[in-house]
Amino acid sequence: MDLSSFLTSLGTSFVIFVILVLIYSWLSSKPGNAVVYYPNRILKGMDPNENRSASCSPFAWIREAMSSSEENVIAMSGVDTAVYFVFLSTVLGILIICGLVLLPSLLPVAATDNRLEQLGANNFTILDKLTMGNVTEKSPRLWAFLFAVYCVSFVTYYLLWRAYNHISNLRTNASMSPELKPEQYAILVRDIPSVEGQSRKEQVDSYFKMIYPETFYRSMIVTDNKEVDKLFKELEGYKKKLLRAEAVYAEGKRTGKSEVRPTHKTGCLGILGKKVDSIEFYTEKISELVPKLEAEQKTTLRDKQLGAAIVFFTSRIAAASAAQSLHAQLVDKWTVIEAPEPRQIIWTNLKKTFYERQVRQYGVYILVALAILFYMIPIGIISAFTTLKNLMKLMPFLKPILKQSAIRTVLEAYLPQIALIVFLALLPKLLLFLSKAEGIPSMSHAIRAASGKYFYFTVLNVFIGFTLAGTLYRTLKDIQNDPNSIVGVLASSIPGSAAFFLTFVALKFFVGYGLELTRIVPLIIFHIKRKYSCKTEAEVKEAWFPGDLKYGTRIPGDLLIATIVLCYSVIAPVIIPFGVAYFGLGWLILRNQALKVYVPSYESYGRMWPHIAVRIIAALVLYQVTMLGYFTLKKFYYTPFLVVLPIISLLFAFFCHTKFYRSFADTALEIVVREPKEIPNLEQIFKSFIPPSLNAEKNDDDQFEDALSQASRSTSFA
Amino acid sequence: MDLSSFLTSLGTSFVIFVILVLIYSWLSSKPGNAVVYYPNRILKGMDPNENRSASCSPFAWIREAMSSSEENVIAMSGVDTAVYFVFLSTVLGILIICGLVLLPSLLPVAATDNRLEQLGANNFTILDKLTMGNVTEKSPRLWAFLFAVYCVSFVTYYLLWRAYNHISNLRTNASMSPELKPEQYAILVRDIPSVEGQSRKEQVDSYFKMIYPETFYRSMIVTDNKEVDKLFKELEGYKKKLLRAEAVYAEGKRTGKSEVRPTHKTGCLGILGKKVDSIEFYTEKISELVPKLEAEQKTTLRDKQLGAAIVFFTSRIAAASAAQSLHAQLVDKWTVIEAPEPRQIIWTNLKKTFYERQVRQYGVYILVALAILFYMIPIGIISAFTTLKNLMKLMPFLKPILKQSAIRTVLEAYLPQIALIVFLALLPKLLLFLSKAEGIPSMSHAIRAASGKYFYFTVLNVFIGFTLAGTLYRTLKDIQNDPNSIVGVLASSIPGSAAFFLTFVALKFFVGYGLELTRIVPLIIFHIKRKYSCKTEAEVKEAWFPGDLKYGTRIPGDLLIATIVLCYSVIAPVIIPFGVAYFGLGWLILRNQALKVYVPSYESYGRMWPHIAVRIIAALVLYQVTMLGYFTLKKFYYTPFLVVLPIISLLFAFFCHTKFYRSFADTALEIVVREPKEIPNLEQIFKSFIPPSLNAEKNDDDQFEDALSQASRSTSFA
Repeated sequence: MDLSSFLTSLGTSFVIFVILVLIYSWLSSKPGNAVVYYPNRILKGMDPNENRSASCSPFAWIREAMSSSEENVIAMSGVDTAVYFVFLSTVLGILIICGLVLLPSLLPVAATDNRLEQLGANNFTILDKLTMGNVTEKSPRLWAFLFAVYCVSFVTYYLLWRAYNHISNLRTNASMSPELKPEQYAILVRDIPSVEGQSRKEQVDSYFKMIYPETFYRSMIVTDNKEVDKLFKELEGYKKKLLRAEAVYAEGKRTGKSEVRPTHKTGCLGILGKKVDSIEFYTEKISELVPKLEAEQKTTLRDKQLGAAIVFFTSRIAAASAAQSLHAQLVDKWTVIEAPEPRQIIWTNLKKTFYERQVRQYGVYILVALAILFYMIPIGIISAFTTLKNLMKLMPFLKPILKQSAIRTVLEAYLPQIALIVFLALLPKLLLFLSKAEGIPSMSHAIRAASGKYFYFTVLNVFIGFTLAGTLYRTLKDIQNDPNSIVGVLASSIPGSAAFFLTFVALKFFVGYGLELTRIVPLIIFHIKRKYSCKTEAEVKEAWFPGDLKYGTRIPGDLLIATIVLCYSVIAPVIIPFGVAYFGLGWLILRNQALKVYVPSYESYGRMWPHIAVRIIAALVLYQVTMLGYFTLKKFYYTPFLVVLPIISLLFAFFCHTKFYRSFADTALEIVVREPKEIPNLEQIFKSFIPPSLNAEKNDDDQFEDALSQASRSTSFA
Repeated sequence: MDLSSFLTSLGTSFVIFVILVLIYSWLSSKPGNAVVYYPNRILKGMDPNENRSASCSPFAWIREAMSSSEENVIAMSGVDTAVYFVFLSTVLGILIICGLVLLPSLLPVAATDNRLEQLGANNFTILDKLTMGNVTEKSPRLWAFLFAVYCVSFVTYYLLWRAYNHISNLRTNASMSPELKPEQYAILVRDIPSVEGQSRKEQVDSYFKMIYPETFYRSMIVTDNKEVDKLFKELEGYKKKLLRAEAVYAEGKRTGKSEVRPTHKTGCLGILGKKVDSIEFYTEKISELVPKLEAEQKTTLRDKQLGAAIVFFTSRIAAASAAQSLHAQLVDKWTVIEAPEPRQIIWTNLKKTFYERQVRQYGVYILVALAILFYMIPIGIISAFTTLKNLMKLMPFLKPILKQSAIRTVLEAYLPQIALIVFLALLPKLLLFLSKAEGIPSMSHAIRAASGKYFYFTVLNVFIGFTLAGTLYRTLKDIQNDPNSIVGVLASSIPGSAAFFLTFVALKFFVGYGLELTRIVPLIIFHIKRKYSCKTEAEVKEAWFPGDLKYGTRIPGDLLIATIVLCYSVIAPVIIPFGVAYFGLGWLILRNQALKVYVPSYESYGRMWPHIAVRIIAALVLYQVTMLGYFTLKKFYYTPFLVVLPIISLLFAFFCHTKFYRSFADTALEIVVREPKEIPNLEQIFKSFIPPSLNAEKNDDDQFEDALSQASRSTSFA
């Protein structure tokens, strides 16, 4: 890639970004769009424009985001989001410090050397001059680069350590907060052995009463809710349709346009079949379904009890201690873990047994490993195809179009990056599906697992795969002629790939974050839906409901950028400002979105962090090994000095794991020992775990041995 | 090694064994030796000859050992010893079943082939004819051997699985037994953070009272006992010497030989210095030391409190649950584990902090790894030197002696084995020292750690090292001429090493177990001591006190034999009867010793077993990989069928670990939920943990803030 196409790419991206920011300022000030740009505030019952009045500048949102504190973020979007910002600001901090040290020191050292001229290369740009590729082999100038590698590593250790400490405290504070958290009073028990002549309910109650005679409150047996869920969904669907039909009828009467009661056909897709009065039809259906659902609820609670339960305790400390203890001598029976939040329980996974979970987990690991290995092939093909020269060579019929210089420049600038981004967009859903198939009981855990898979996928395939495949393809001929030249070829092409990644990073932050800020797609969808399909309030709300931040897929993307920037930080230090811009803009724009737009759908109190930290260290090790290889290729005598760095990184990772990990996995007793001031309503806590399809209003005392009923029949069902 | 030297070795060993057994029958029937042959019974207050009267046959001990049940063993020698016998009988079972299947099927298949003749070898023996080395390459006969590999593997899985289940139940029953176990009521707390202005005692009490307001009983702070231990030891020494002097004086008066009061010199070794009256001198010393010790005890308890404590609970379930829970949010503070038995606590290790333990542990690992790698060198030299030919080549001056055929045969038979055994005898002490240096808090754990190191050491060095080094040395020249021949050389020499290992095994069981049974060395030492140095009862008892079974060093030795026999089981099935004899004789003789001789010095309720199981599987994997290599060298087309076996073994190991390990590491709550019938005397439990040097009789209420004093001052110090 030459300098002009690089600058074109950069320029275009920047222009697009500025336009998008201006569009945002304009659109977000329109009251009609408030539900798209301020849904989180609206849902929390706040005035969307509350800080708006103070200043009318179109960039007020920037000031707002900058001045928001961590407490604001936690209040508006939870600890997980706050942890995500700690991650962003940690990487940002690393890059800023490294930039301040490396740019003024390394760029002059590289620029004043003249290896590229010596080699007689004639197609190098000013960018190439500024890389380590321009430094002569064995030159003492390499000392500067070697020190830079150390500098980057130690800055990373230091900031990562601070972040770990900080997040550990965040987590503690969150656990100690006076707010009532139902999951702190419960544990999830799985692998309950089946006993003849005893219902699961009796079994669980007697077992836990025996072990915790004083602190056991009651239990809720997990049931097979397939049937009842189906009925519940059907009923909810009819209720919605009834509301909609009534709204249409009322609207027609109000505007006087039509007094006709709405009708529809009962057959396929509402096109075929008998024409019926919608309101009557749905009302009838609902009155048919309600008793059916109630009967099914009773059957489910009584007859469909599965080998898992949620057990409630009267105090947080009893639950925390129970979740950490081995209960049965057979380790594969009565396994306990802390209960997940009610809203994030994956009910269908709870019944999976110990060995089923093990088998599924390793099955999925093997599948993902195979996928990572064999996706290399399409990635390699993409990277080979998407250079214009190759495209012209392989598809000569495109030549006339591609010869036009405008199209050519734009295509050359964007084609490979777009191909890559589109390709990567397909993955996360598949990985989340696979992670759920492992039998993980909570959504946040499944997302963590998927996020990890996604990270290794992107780093291995995109970064390593792309660099190597691109390099190999370009130089396949040279290598065929002289197999020993491969080492030299690699050394000379690593700096060459820097420009590709520079454009990749720039595209991601300018266009990606621009689109994130303006929410063009949700905006358009919302307006279309509101205009043409939404009839009831609930439907309108559904149309603008923003969903959550999806940090599970953001983090691997960010980590990929961090990996790329780290790996090139010393080879081509000009990449550092791009990294700073990516994480800086990301921090700013997502802060805005977290405060105003996204609504967290669960809370795991930062359990993602240890995984992020491990992956940052993995990126660092990759960087250190790359540098070791690159210095070797530069024939620098003192390269062995670098061997110690990956070892330090691994020790650091081990140290962090030993010091912090258990406090993320288990709840420390000293934290939950202080009970909240107000006495918790245990019945309320229990009820919050009942899945909606079982939570009928009429659910009361008359169900004897069912899965919900109390251990002691003396207390009434609140 | 030729057949005659092999048979000589075998014959001699057998004769020695028979003689030793006869000696045992004779010596053990003499009443004066009862304390050497029945100390365990005597210490338990039983009649040494209780089953003796029934039969006077010199082999009655065999019937006794055979008819003893597992309960007998547990009663006489504890669960750890019972687990050791389960290990022996499991390996024995594996070898018997394999022998029954493999010997009749493989020996004819091997013997009727004629590869050795084809190769024109002329120095092969009948032993060589019976090995897989005699089977022609690519021959369909190899199918029999391949099935044999599968057979051995699956027999091992099955019996190992049964043993795991059995031991898991043994452990459970032991934990549930009504016998009071002080350690079940306590946890060991380490890494207590230091706080200004609060004594450790106050700190620990307030911390655990906060978390366990109802079940916390009291705490005992670990103190720096160096000074007090020194004084205590000095005092005990003088007390002993005083008793001895008094006994000498009384003896002199009684026999009328001398009425002179015993005297000694106070200077170096009792040779120099002033001559004093012993009884007066020691009495004076003791009366000087007692107040000193008491003062030091007070100082220690008050001022030398360290950052560790033993915390006592009022119930077993509270202690078991507390030992498994994370207490502090900072994982490296307030770390808890189950308390070890009082008698096996390594007090000096308790004060070591979290990071010190980590650093020490990995430091020791590295040291041991280095030792394993570099001991290869001496082992290689031993193995190369200790063949007679080499000895003669390298030390020509020995030639005249070695030419004599009698000496020659004996030396050839024993030299390498003796060299090896002597060499291995030096190791265990070093490894135990290193394991203690890791900062492990209990003796049984340190012994487990040392045992693991010893196993890897012996297997890697003795078995692999010896085979390879021996082979390499013998064929160094061939390899120099033709480097590719190394593979063929290895293939042909693996069966050749079989004879060496056969002799090694036979020597170990005949001579080793013969000596074990007769206890010649302890017998002689006891009689010498009794005759010349013991004056008091206590000294006599010390002279015959047998110590424990030392399974920590026996197990690696047994595992080495098991590894050797497994690895050669298919290549040279004649080794199997030797293995059976080793484990059968071992079981028999050690059963006798466990019931009558050894006194266990601690009890870990079978925590050694998971480690044994892992190492048996490691031996199995080594065997499977060896066979894979050996079949490859035999150019058998269907060798890849064997690839699946190591994978199955690893899965099996993983499965066992997942299913059982946690129940060995943690106490399951359902086991300890039933409290013992009699209400435990908590004061007694507490007192049993007080180290002897601090356990003064006068230790009572008047010590206020000391490390032992109670949390509540209301109860008196019993």
